[in-house]
Amino acid sequence: MTQEQTGIDLNGTVTSPKGFKAGGSACNIKESGSLDLGILTSDNICTAAGVFTTSQIRAAAIEIDEELLENGQAQTIIVNSGNANASTGKRGIGDARKLSELAAKKCGTTQHNSLVSSTGIIGHHLPMELIEEGIQHLELTTQGGHDFARAIMTTDIVPKTGSVKFGDYTIGGCAKGSGMIHPNMATMLAYLTTDAPIEQNMLQTTLVDAVEKTFNLISVDGDTSPSDTVIILANGTDQTKVIKEDSELAKEFAEALTTLCEHLAKAIVRDGEGATKLIEIEIENAKTIPEAKTLIRDLTTSYLLKTAVHGSDPNWGRIVSVIGRSNIEIVGDAVTVAICDTLVFENGEPSPYDEKSVAKAMESDTISIKISVGSGNAYAKGWGCDLSAEYVRINADYTT
Amino acid sequence: MTQEQTGIDLNGTVTSPKGFKAGGSACNIKESGSLDLGILTSDNICTAAGVFTTSQIRAAAIEIDEELLENGQAQTIIVNSGNANASTGKRGIGDARKLSELAAKKCGTTQHNSLVSSTGIIGHHLPMELIEEGIQHLELTTQGGHDFARAIMTTDIVPKTGSVKFGDYTIGGCAKGSGMIHPNMATMLAYLTTDAPIEQNMLQTTLVDAVEKTFNLISVDGDTSPSDTVIILANGTDQTKVIKEDSELAKEFAEALTTLCEHLAKAIVRDGEGATKLIEIEIENAKTIPEAKTLIRDLTTSYLLKTAVHGSDPNWGRIVSVIGRSNIEIVGDAVTVAICDTLVFENGEPSPYDEKSVAKAMESDTISIKISVGSGNAYAKGWGCDLSAEYVRINADYTT
Repeated sequence: MTQEQTGIDLNGTVTSPKGFKAGGSACNIKESGSLDLGILTSDNICTAAGVFTTSQIRAAAIEIDEELLENGQAQTIIVNSGNANASTGKRGIGDARKLSELAAKKCGTTQHNSLVSSTGIIGHHLPMELIEEGIQHLELTTQGGHDFARAIMTTDIVPKTGSVKFGDYTIGGCAKGSGMIHPNMATMLAYLTTDAPIEQNMLQTTLVDAVEKTFNLISVDGDTSPSDTVIILANGTDQTKVIKEDSELAKEFAEALTTLCEHLAKAIVRDGEGATKLIEIEIENAKTIPEAKTLIRDLTTSYLLKTAVHGSDPNWGRIVSVIGRSNIEIVGDAVTVAICDTLVFENGEPSPYDEKSVAKAMESDTISIKISVGSGNAYAKGWGCDLSAEYVRINADYTT
Repeated sequence: MTQEQTGIDLNGTVTSPKGFKAGGSACNIKESGSLDLGILTSDNICTAAGVFTTSQIRAAAIEIDEELLENGQAQTIIVNSGNANASTGKRGIGDARKLSELAAKKCGTTQHNSLVSSTGIIGHHLPMELIEEGIQHLELTTQGGHDFARAIMTTDIVPKTGSVKFGDYTIGGCAKGSGMIHPNMATMLAYLTTDAPIEQNMLQTTLVDAVEKTFNLISVDGDTSPSDTVIILANGTDQTKVIKEDSELAKEFAEALTTLCEHLAKAIVRDGEGATKLIEIEIENAKTIPEAKTLIRDLTTSYLLKTAVHGSDPNWGRIVSVIGRSNIEIVGDAVTVAICDTLVFENGEPSPYDEKSVAKAMESDTISIKISVGSGNAYAKGWGCDLSAEYVRINADYTT
């Protein structure tokens, strides 16, 4: 799908919707000296919703944000990269609260409306003095979304932003993906903004639904971070125009939000460590949507499939092997697999195909795999990346 | 644990117990011209038991063997490597039956007592003429266990054999591990023999228990093959000495069998593609044994842990991250992690340790990781291997 078709503005950011400002600062939390502190704020208090990591071991920021979001409101988000403030005990919780206070003061709001995220090294305490110093140099502007997107990066190679329009409104967003520095773990963060007036309940349910269809269906390396966060702020204030559930505009909002989330989710996978190719997997005729998603997860985390894609090898045996071991209902005689739109396995039997032309098609940077499992009518789509020797080098050989 | 402690004879094979013969032949199923057909046979009909792949897509040989083993008896096993006879439809089933007949004729038994295994390329029909020709040159001897162990290898680098004694009896065994050739998939095969007289029910339950504790707790790359097979033949005929359930000798048999299976399972992991280190993981204080095993599986399949071990990097953040996302009950404040016997994380908080000395210890070829999750009293032990750039090269870059 090209950008024109999806309607994504690649230059859009979290400050594209009206009434949002943002900026970034270099506090030396990261040794590289690059931007490592970002603040996003709205001119007025927003309706807010969040989706957080399902890990049982959660970073301090997650505890704080869930508490702060209980009333469904927020105005400001402060994010530091380079230090995850995770597995840092009570002092870590205190530091996260302090971060929230500092951002609130900077943006002229209260600590109750000031959310926090941290990503980077785990098991180390935040360098609070560096942050207090750095926050003073941070400038908040209506063009600051780009700096904000850079400030939340760890070993991401490119910033990931975009915006999309629906009705008279705009949704902006940015995300960071997985990167490891020693000792560290991958974290996915995404921030979304909109100038549309939206009730909190609908904002939350629409966000959860969009995340389920996009961010929750990507995998770089199968590991879930204690810091995974997706937050949306909606700052529309015109109460006469509040978007009602089940309205046409609510549908447009959900579609636009899902489109933007899919754009950011795919950008995360493409920028996965050592990744050279995006794998797009579609499962058809599964018993249920959760079963289709399970199979997507099993495929996008399969070493054998990821290496076969890396080597442009139409090795359907590895795909069939994952389908067979996946804990979902399948009808063996109905299993059908297509790689890059070429049928390679049909109704449980090998399908004759031109191996060389499929191998050639697999040299593209986007590999499509379509699978039918014959046990129902459910459909799901998800994304993974290939596994390269570079991934191993990043995560093993290049440690301190 | 050294070989002396476990009592394993590394020169032992499936022909170490009395009354077994075996051999191998090169039929040119494999392009390399190395041994690719093996036969194992007993002088008399054996009590037999088997454990097979849990994959829903199963190779022809698995269907045949389950049928043949219904009466709990067998005398002969024929195995070819180089071609898995999987995803080959009805003709594949016919070829597997023919293979069974050929072995029965060679060994002077009936087709009902002749089991079959195949491992190698999937989606290709067996070259039956080559096999019929090659079987004629195959010599069955009481020293033939070594050739048999070589004949079942695919891209395994070393044969994996051993034997162990209990009471007046011997258990012998061999296994093959995971290797990929294009287009192919990993398969684990193991064959065990004993000269002890054992009833079929007890043989089956003891085998299942030993497999659960050993072969089912190893992982090279997280993928389950449609051909995974473990078979045991017991040819003891002295009915006055039949080993009774709950007897002391039954306990010794179970311990000896588990020890041998553990030896072979670890040998498979050490010879995993691109593997340079064995990771031994012990989980303590889990709620249940299945939960402890789930965590072992999540750890041994974690890209981040496998690369950290490869890089001799005591990156406990990655271990804690997997514990957090694992779908098992944990008590966060009780989670404790030791790497190479050094405490790195204790009761939910980082534990001060000498990073350099642990990194040094991790340069060993066996890495111990001990974890307590604080939710119960259950214990399990399992094994994985590191992830190297060589693994990616074997599975991606070196394809046709």
